[in-house]
Amino acid sequence: MPKFFMAGTNLKGGMAYVRGQDAEHIRVLRLRPGDDVWVCDGKGTDYKCHIVKTDKEEAQLEVVEVRPCTSEPSVDTAVLCGLPKGSDRTDYIIQKSVEAGADEIMFFDCARCIAKPDEPEKKTERWQRIAEEAAKQSGRGIIPQVSWVGSLVGALDVAVKRDIGLFMYETGERESLSEVLDKNSGVKSAAIITGPEGGFEKFEADLARAAGLHVCSMGERILRCETAPIVALTAVMYATGNLA
Amino acid sequence: MPKFFMAGTNLKGGMAYVRGQDAEHIRVLRLRPGDDVWVCDGKGTDYKCHIVKTDKEEAQLEVVEVRPCTSEPSVDTAVLCGLPKGSDRTDYIIQKSVEAGADEIMFFDCARCIAKPDEPEKKTERWQRIAEEAAKQSGRGIIPQVSWVGSLVGALDVAVKRDIGLFMYETGERESLSEVLDKNSGVKSAAIITGPEGGFEKFEADLARAAGLHVCSMGERILRCETAPIVALTAVMYATGNLA
Repeated sequence: MPKFFMAGTNLKGGMAYVRGQDAEHIRVLRLRPGDDVWVCDGKGTDYKCHIVKTDKEEAQLEVVEVRPCTSEPSVDTAVLCGLPKGSDRTDYIIQKSVEAGADEIMFFDCARCIAKPDEPEKKTERWQRIAEEAAKQSGRGIIPQVSWVGSLVGALDVAVKRDIGLFMYETGERESLSEVLDKNSGVKSAAIITGPEGGFEKFEADLARAAGLHVCSMGERILRCETAPIVALTAVMYATGNLA
Repeated sequence: MPKFFMAGTNLKGGMAYVRGQDAEHIRVLRLRPGDDVWVCDGKGTDYKCHIVKTDKEEAQLEVVEVRPCTSEPSVDTAVLCGLPKGSDRTDYIIQKSVEAGADEIMFFDCARCIAKPDEPEKKTERWQRIAEEAAKQSGRGIIPQVSWVGSLVGALDVAVKRDIGLFMYETGERESLSEVLDKNSGVKSAAIITGPEGGFEKFEADLARAAGLHVCSMGERILRCETAPIVALTAVMYATGNLA
């Protein structure tokens, strides 16, 4: 059954009214009155609907079943990354993190960031569009929010509020990511912090440790700054039973 | 200590002779006689070396220690993908699979492949260069081979020869990837098969099952064809203790 992700769906009296691009999409797929579709409201609920009427401007659907969206992982994971140089890597992190199950994506400035945007807040609109597109494509139940948290301190502040905070670091004293996750497979929320192109300075890792985060190794292979968050996020999903 | 990945290193009588680009690289990093470096031969062995002499054409290094390369995972994993449309996705799969620890990367033609290359063998030279670059960047101990295996049948033939064969499929009867991997954490070799943009046809999944592969689900989120192999590969690395 086709599944639509319609953040703007209007629900009223057991009916769903779909307008604009999404209505057009239903027409393009040649769905007709009588066909059933799943509609996801972007806030974690799915509606099984019966198509009553479609035209250019609007599709009218009768809601026949309501259930929590099954594609959302059981763990809310924030992915926090030192801002990479170049928008390709940033875009990539957003798209793949959404696919792999992140709940929020945030960027921050830190010691080895080459990119020093003047007004990163202005970029968030574009970032958010990438997240929305990826959420639709991958059938997510929510649209993960993308934001700028300023500094590593801002990122640590987000991470300490989650059940588990994971700080990825390439050298020195570290815990094994898989050992940490194996001991914490029941967490309901997590934060992953990864560095920019050059990684983190030692004082930044020390700060993360002092804040109570797990400073983690993902093995001896060096991951690019745009690859590390996806690998770490996949490990979190695997360890918490969300790759099944 | 700097680590170099030098496939062309010439070893003779306890000395390593580094020529060409790699010799230049040593000079660019301002390494001098007396400095120590790790040299990886691209076949799974690392050499700790003492720099004796560097000039434009050649660096002479004294080998002081030999050990198996620690960055190689304990599991040899082949990543086999239905050829995606457009070289961006193909390149991406190669680069990220190498970073994430694949041992071989192979592409094949199947029912829903949009891309139908006339002479895919001709592409393997470029593909191999991407793998080599990624292997150097991520400090791999080998250069994973990239090749064209023709058809899904060719891919299945590769997979059945590994300890475990995993076929990623988006609908119908499937096993949970994490359950399969949890039961097989001691495997020494694995194969991951993922589809092109439109995924696989049911008869292709049936064929994989008949061949003895595990037809697996990675959850309800729909992963793009270039994302699925990386997520599956990371799951294999996690489950076999290679993300630590």
